[in-house]
Amino acid sequence: MRPVIWWKNGRVVMIDQRQLPGREVYIECKNHERVARAIETLAIRGAPAIGVAAAYGVALGVSRLKGGADLDGAFAKIHKRLWRTRPTARNLFWALERMKAVYEKSWGLGLAALKKRLLAEAAAIDREDVMINRKLGRNGSALIKSGSTVLTHCNAGALATAGYGTALGVVRAAVERGKKVRVVADETRPVLQGARLTVWELARDRIPVTLITDNMAAYLMARGEIDLVIVGADRIARNGDTANKIGTYGVAVLAKEHEIPFYVAAPLSTVDLGLKDGSGIPIEERSGDEVRRIRGKLITLPKVDVRNPAFDVTPAKYITAIITERGIARPPLARSLGAWIRT
Amino acid sequence: MRPVIWWKNGRVVMIDQRQLPGREVYIECKNHERVARAIETLAIRGAPAIGVAAAYGVALGVSRLKGGADLDGAFAKIHKRLWRTRPTARNLFWALERMKAVYEKSWGLGLAALKKRLLAEAAAIDREDVMINRKLGRNGSALIKSGSTVLTHCNAGALATAGYGTALGVVRAAVERGKKVRVVADETRPVLQGARLTVWELARDRIPVTLITDNMAAYLMARGEIDLVIVGADRIARNGDTANKIGTYGVAVLAKEHEIPFYVAAPLSTVDLGLKDGSGIPIEERSGDEVRRIRGKLITLPKVDVRNPAFDVTPAKYITAIITERGIARPPLARSLGAWIRT
Repeated sequence: MRPVIWWKNGRVVMIDQRQLPGREVYIECKNHERVARAIETLAIRGAPAIGVAAAYGVALGVSRLKGGADLDGAFAKIHKRLWRTRPTARNLFWALERMKAVYEKSWGLGLAALKKRLLAEAAAIDREDVMINRKLGRNGSALIKSGSTVLTHCNAGALATAGYGTALGVVRAAVERGKKVRVVADETRPVLQGARLTVWELARDRIPVTLITDNMAAYLMARGEIDLVIVGADRIARNGDTANKIGTYGVAVLAKEHEIPFYVAAPLSTVDLGLKDGSGIPIEERSGDEVRRIRGKLITLPKVDVRNPAFDVTPAKYITAIITERGIARPPLARSLGAWIRT
Repeated sequence: MRPVIWWKNGRVVMIDQRQLPGREVYIECKNHERVARAIETLAIRGAPAIGVAAAYGVALGVSRLKGGADLDGAFAKIHKRLWRTRPTARNLFWALERMKAVYEKSWGLGLAALKKRLLAEAAAIDREDVMINRKLGRNGSALIKSGSTVLTHCNAGALATAGYGTALGVVRAAVERGKKVRVVADETRPVLQGARLTVWELARDRIPVTLITDNMAAYLMARGEIDLVIVGADRIARNGDTANKIGTYGVAVLAKEHEIPFYVAAPLSTVDLGLKDGSGIPIEERSGDEVRRIRGKLITLPKVDVRNPAFDVTPAKYITAIITERGIARPPLARSLGAWIRT
């Protein structure tokens, strides 16, 4: 697969995930505003991927600045624009903080050197993300027995990261180790990341995948057709409470009721040590038309009242373990997560 | 609201539920084959409604027979065609059994009298269904406190019955008694009965309704925004295990986890005393394209493997009570249900 996002001749290029799987279209962003809009409109989504996009966005914004400008002011504006794109995913802020730290260390070197350093940092975040995914994939692959069926929700795959994926990275690593793995993908309304993205990328890798509507998961669990659940994460609080795509919490409750292991796969950059628990995670509410319409087509009355929280929080007690690049954190989750991040 | 289905000048007329809420179109069935196809294609759906449709279908089929034909053979053919339309809803078979009993008692009276008797029986099933729904609505309304928010799944409303509704009949009865009730409707993929039908009929009655995707129910429950759940039923086994629209079982598990009462509202004609428990209920698997497409539009790869069970079974242990026309059956459900049906 081509990378999800890359830098090319002073532009940021990314696959337009809104058009998958029907069309494979690439977007070339000429400025950081385009990158910000790509994040807001879900042309690129997935916590690690939007971290990488934001980092490239900063590098792109600064690359277009001319000497003599108010550098601090211009940087603050670019940074703030990208910071405000989406509220839930920790990786966005983590990446922007890294970019800011480089800016603060490097601005005295002159504009040309600063531009180079920022681009190098964004490229490092990009490259590291793939390596981290491969590591967490390897760690997690030990949890999958050959012949297993893995249920996943939303898309925590190559498309949600710089490449390889988190939850699907674990599946890929198991497959690379010769295990037979089947994936059941929740379609993941309202934006259908499961039906559109998870199905697409697994089909390309020839990993067997079966698509279900979100409300069929309990039925399959009751019939013994699901061996384990693996999902990604948008933000993990210190105690292990995990924000992820709306619907994840329901799947976790169902997994517990059916005594099926429920794993979260995420890089440590998703962990927010500043939050004691999940109650502090901001949950984005998106436009009601995402619920009223599917792929543009109205499915209900045009003005019906709707809710559209984009994420929910799964309390740590429902999580069997969190799979990271440093190892598998088991309860009490706070201990491992804290130790790994601080060292 | 106009009735959902009625007899008019030797034809069976029904609203085409596949086109709601966009268009209000009526289908006139000239023969029982058309009625059978309307049931199969979900032009009419909902366990009580398809019972009424099948009864009218028999009356319609026989009304077109001419003297001198092999009456027993013709009746058996009509009956069998309607019997095979859908496998799960008990009310379909219950209504067809009633029609057959009338046939057996009346065939000696001559063709003209037989036609009259069969039509009268279908009309009685139709009329009784509305009365039964009003009774069970009244019984159930005692369970709703004013100011409550009721979560429902699929459509167990006027459109699923001869009128008034089962789950939504309970809501209507509470509203008629001056209670303030808000409904949260699961959209109910794949066929979107919640988004299309429940929203439409509640909006017409000016009962406040909020639409959510199926995977948002757990989020609202965790926030304390759901006071009780009421759903309909397609078949209830002797012990109370209940088959209903796919996704119902998941909602029941979530309700239990959040200590929210979970009620099933259904006429006693939905109860199948011949089944010890839910394991004997046949679950219809429908075309995979219902999952791959939404309102005709492809949302995933055209040939991806899918599952499409139309129903699931909620074990009795998740059901707080079953609301019927005879009263509210509480656990052990078998005792009340059995006693009410036998007397």
